[in-house]
Amino acid sequence: MATRPLRLALFGSGRIGQVHARNLAADPSIELAMIADPFIDGAQALAEATGSRAVQDPEEVFANTTLDGVIIGSPTNTHVDLMTRAAAKGLAVLCEKPIDLDLDTVLACREHLKDADAPIMLGFNRRFDPGFNAVNARVAAGEIGELEQLTIISRDPAPAPRSYLETSGGIFRDMTIHDLDMARFFVPDIVEVTAVGANLFSEDIKELGDYDSVVVTLRGSKGELISITNSRHCSYGYDQRLEAFGPNGMLEARNLTPTAVSKHSAEGTGQLDPIFNFFLERYADAYRLELQAFAEAIRTGASPKPGFADGLAALVLADAALESATNGKTVKVDRIW
Amino acid sequence: MATRPLRLALFGSGRIGQVHARNLAADPSIELAMIADPFIDGAQALAEATGSRAVQDPEEVFANTTLDGVIIGSPTNTHVDLMTRAAAKGLAVLCEKPIDLDLDTVLACREHLKDADAPIMLGFNRRFDPGFNAVNARVAAGEIGELEQLTIISRDPAPAPRSYLETSGGIFRDMTIHDLDMARFFVPDIVEVTAVGANLFSEDIKELGDYDSVVVTLRGSKGELISITNSRHCSYGYDQRLEAFGPNGMLEARNLTPTAVSKHSAEGTGQLDPIFNFFLERYADAYRLELQAFAEAIRTGASPKPGFADGLAALVLADAALESATNGKTVKVDRIW
Amino acid sequence: MATRPLRLALFGSGRIGQVHARNLAADPSIELAMIADPFIDGAQALAEATGSRAVQDPEEVFANTTLDGVIIGSPTNTHVDLMTRAAAKGLAVLCEKPIDLDLDTVLACREHLKDADAPIMLGFNRRFDPGFNAVNARVAAGEIGELEQLTIISRDPAPAPRSYLETSGGIFRDMTIHDLDMARFFVPDIVEVTAVGANLFSEDIKELGDYDSVVVTLRGSKGELISITNSRHCSYGYDQRLEAFGPNGMLEARNLTPTAVSKHSAEGTGQLDPIFNFFLERYADAYRLELQAFAEAIRTGASPKPGFADGLAALVLADAALESATNGKTVKVDRIW
Amino acid sequence: MATRPLRLALFGSGRIGQVHARNLAADPSIELAMIADPFIDGAQALAEATGSRAVQDPEEVFANTTLDGVIIGSPTNTHVDLMTRAAAKGLAVLCEKPIDLDLDTVLACREHLKDADAPIMLGFNRRFDPGFNAVNARVAAGEIGELEQLTIISRDPAPAPRSYLETSGGIFRDMTIHDLDMARFFVPDIVEVTAVGANLFSEDIKELGDYDSVVVTLRGSKGELISITNSRHCSYGYDQRLEAFGPNGMLEARNLTPTAVSKHSAEGTGQLDPIFNFFLERYADAYRLELQAFAEAIRTGASPKPGFADGLAALVLADAALESATNGKTVKVDRIW
Repeated sequence: MATRPLRLALFGSGRIGQVHARNLAADPSIELAMIADPFIDGAQALAEATGSRAVQDPEEVFANTTLDGVIIGSPTNTHVDLMTRAAAKGLAVLCEKPIDLDLDTVLACREHLKDADAPIMLGFNRRFDPGFNAVNARVAAGEIGELEQLTIISRDPAPAPRSYLETSGGIFRDMTIHDLDMARFFVPDIVEVTAVGANLFSEDIKELGDYDSVVVTLRGSKGELISITNSRHCSYGYDQRLEAFGPNGMLEARNLTPTAVSKHSAEGTGQLDPIFNFFLERYADAYRLELQAFAEAIRTGASPKPGFADGLAALVLADAALESATNGKTVKVDRIW
Repeated sequence: MATRPLRLALFGSGRIGQVHARNLAADPSIELAMIADPFIDGAQALAEATGSRAVQDPEEVFANTTLDGVIIGSPTNTHVDLMTRAAAKGLAVLCEKPIDLDLDTVLACREHLKDADAPIMLGFNRRFDPGFNAVNARVAAGEIGELEQLTIISRDPAPAPRSYLETSGGIFRDMTIHDLDMARFFVPDIVEVTAVGANLFSEDIKELGDYDSVVVTLRGSKGELISITNSRHCSYGYDQRLEAFGPNGMLEARNLTPTAVSKHSAEGTGQLDPIFNFFLERYADAYRLELQAFAEAIRTGASPKPGFADGLAALVLADAALESATNGKTVKVDRIW
Repeated sequence: MATRPLRLALFGSGRIGQVHARNLAADPSIELAMIADPFIDGAQALAEATGSRAVQDPEEVFANTTLDGVIIGSPTNTHVDLMTRAAAKGLAVLCEKPIDLDLDTVLACREHLKDADAPIMLGFNRRFDPGFNAVNARVAAGEIGELEQLTIISRDPAPAPRSYLETSGGIFRDMTIHDLDMARFFVPDIVEVTAVGANLFSEDIKELGDYDSVVVTLRGSKGELISITNSRHCSYGYDQRLEAFGPNGMLEARNLTPTAVSKHSAEGTGQLDPIFNFFLERYADAYRLELQAFAEAIRTGASPKPGFADGLAALVLADAALESATNGKTVKVDRIW
Repeated sequence: MATRPLRLALFGSGRIGQVHARNLAADPSIELAMIADPFIDGAQALAEATGSRAVQDPEEVFANTTLDGVIIGSPTNTHVDLMTRAAAKGLAVLCEKPIDLDLDTVLACREHLKDADAPIMLGFNRRFDPGFNAVNARVAAGEIGELEQLTIISRDPAPAPRSYLETSGGIFRDMTIHDLDMARFFVPDIVEVTAVGANLFSEDIKELGDYDSVVVTLRGSKGELISITNSRHCSYGYDQRLEAFGPNGMLEARNLTPTAVSKHSAEGTGQLDPIFNFFLERYADAYRLELQAFAEAIRTGASPKPGFADGLAALVLADAALESATNGKTVKVDRIW
């Protein structure tokens, strides 16, 4: 069946749904059969731009027997339901992170999914970033020896609106969770979490009882030390870097700039363009490659990575980080995933 | 007519034709109606991969009355004929460089095209490279003041095969011509050419009476000094850089690497990946953006840039460079374009 | 008294003493009157090379009434005694860090020094590194707004010999103490210490009950978050970097390389020389500028910075880090200094 | 005689004399015995600062029989006379470039020096710049294979005052001469010179019949191609770079910045400090190392490099460049040196 394109449906026509829809439209080997969104106007506009079909009712997706899989880009509180139903139909699933903000809900979901053997992939897009992915592959290939330290710096350009922050689950579950998964991309077995949080600039975030800045230290099962530094704002763009350190060297993934043009003037030397300010631009390649990996997994029948267990693990670590920051104690993590 | 996709045909299913075909296939606003190539097998394979139709006889293209334009990616000696016929049919033309290796043939072609007012665009793809394009735009916007000096360094990874070199027209018409156009992108009026050539490594090229390494100095009509350094080989990849210098600063476009990952080890510090080794990878963005510019010109009826006159001008400069290198004298250029 | 050179004596002709002696010899405005060391051979050799005079007995230094100050570069366990006696004579003191490894001894020393008002400077040389110093000055000048996060990465090329490690006081008091002082250079008031340690590569260090790798998180009195990453080995040299982050930008001090020469080859792009592998080379400028600051303080009568209180504070933080790493709890720090 | 310091005298207490005097003062193995300058006030001030003795009459230098050598940092028109007389006395000579602006005068001087076998070193300081020197050594060691192309970019921060320009000998003899010597540092045998000049910004320079901007192409005896780009002004500092290209790679010496601190902000990424704006700062290391090489040559009896012949060769090339720029022809160079 090499010649039949994959047939996928997309839930959600918002920001992230648009990214996926456009990437699907540019890939001749995949057909975007349907875009489902209760806000039918958005779905319609996106369907028109990408040669797809808009539907309002998710039932139309599940009723369609020609589909190979679904992409869940709808709000977080719909993830578990859509994922469970799609899996029950035997559809492959690519679900945006997080599975859910509540650990018990995720564990219950896992129970439900046990019998379905549908492949489930979690949308931790950063694993597919060419830079981070290359560092990971080179570490795995032994280029720097056994990993000893990993330093992740990750700062958002600006806090989300207060309305979003209220339901975000807090910085650890909403933002740090990406870095926790990145840590697990390098060191899957994390055994200890130590976190410190601060309120340095946002009154909104403070009022919500959340932190705007955190530093998290993880320990892997072989003793590896991982340091994550987060801020909810960053004047110079979307700061996304990491360094992997081992006995034979260090691999560093720096920020990306739109071009390799630099300016030399009386004000300074070698000034590159500002880095990307928006996650969709910064991770454009990552989203495209993530989709390819999902399609490849469907075609080959391989288990997609990162999977459900990775989504669960990241949430466990986020909860542990919150507990540590609250109590001023290192939290040991049971490997429940 | 916003909703009907543009309909284009492509001549040539070789290396460059494949780039264009894939870029067309990924753009939902353009339909690649036909791929014409006497080597029908290549055309067929490419048509299949891109959802197009293969034809052997170019007449089928010219007989089709639904087309908006053609892309000429066939061998150089077919350019003038295909361009002339397409223009006579009122089709927009994107023609790969060079128009022809012979100046008289190009001038005769210009004569023929006079009556047709079809838009013709020349495939000097580097103008669309995001880095070079950004430097050009920033210079035009006055960021460094009036341009005084332009330094272009351009080295191919390795010489083409001898069979190709024999019909290439020599380094100035085949390779330097890109840099001559780049020079004209910044300084359209070139009034003087001084060139020096050398044989440093290739016996093949020497036997053909050609140079493998050249340095060319151009003078613009306002006195601007432009320096071009070329080599037919480069161990570290496809070296493509430029610097624009003016009274208020310098803008530098450095080579591109696949990622922003660098290695720090006992052998060295901040070592990035090797730069791209192949022009199709190095200029992937440029080819895509060139096509968009062509489509945009068709849609808006604007004259596409670079145009026929730019193709002619670059050839005039290449011929002047050869004359200068041969005679050891600066050659004044009449502005015949 | 602009014309009379300062007259200084130096205790210790070891590695650090040699640095100071050579810097003194190259400064025509300072006279190195004596070098005192019980190992008289070393003192003699150094005195010859620098045009000074060697003495075995420290009493000769204290008996000399023409001196302006002393530099204490002898072993740690001599610091308190020499410092106290020099101060009692009214001599200015530049003492290498640490004052002592034992907090009670340092506090007792402070008691003794109370009545003497001799200026005491602590040899936290990194404050005088041109890069770190420039970042500090630019932060103080408000260039990035109020400091929010500081990231310090500091790795030694290789562990000291076991004999040294045994008396070093452990990684926090011996190595991290430099970074703790660097943290206080930016954020003098530290209120909380959280530390995590690991044994990743050195059996020797493990046997001594010490860590070879640590991550320390500090909180400043305004909430600032500071992250320190240390390793006792580093294959690519003496890794010494920091980043200061605030609402208006980030200032980054990268590692230094001997030249600005980079290599471009099939193996990689823009590869600089390996960074310095030895602290005396890496901080050559810092040692020179530290000495100038000491001399300047003597001449002007200003209090030298960093002073005794800074040496004490760094030790308090080091002890707190050890406690935190041992107990898995954040340790609050009383501002006893 | 390892223990006796070298005894040197210095002619000239101007800008360059001050650099040498301070470097001599900081080197305990050299004694600066005398500073000679008809402007005795300058000599006196400098002598005081460096612990030397000022004399007005050069005869006092030549009368002193304890000297090992002299450094000639006085105006150009005194060079030949002082050099000839010092050499006649058997004194080693380090003479600032150029020997003289007039080729016949230099040739006559060579005639005079024939019988003296005093070692003469020419002050082409850039050869001692750690970056350029490292590239040269690495090329010589075969790291990139046989050198094929050398690209030198060299721009002064601002034109000298008109009074200086009037007697400077023109851009080729005054400014390009440094780059011509740098070219010869890599490729001693230059056989051809092609030059192009322009007047782009300075009315003063234009009125003097000189160029403010030039591009020079040299050919070595093995065919090597060397490109030099000069400008008499540069808003971003003293632009001093080169690239050496061979079959196995490229070595690039970039501009130096005072620190490795970079700024990341909404305006741009990785912005280093402005590069040095003044030749004494940019080449501080080079001047110091040049002096060490001179002292080393005296001590070992080796011929100092670069020598008189190098000063002559650079002048021959500068004259050839002027001829080429004037006539629009490549000029062949007889190897008269």
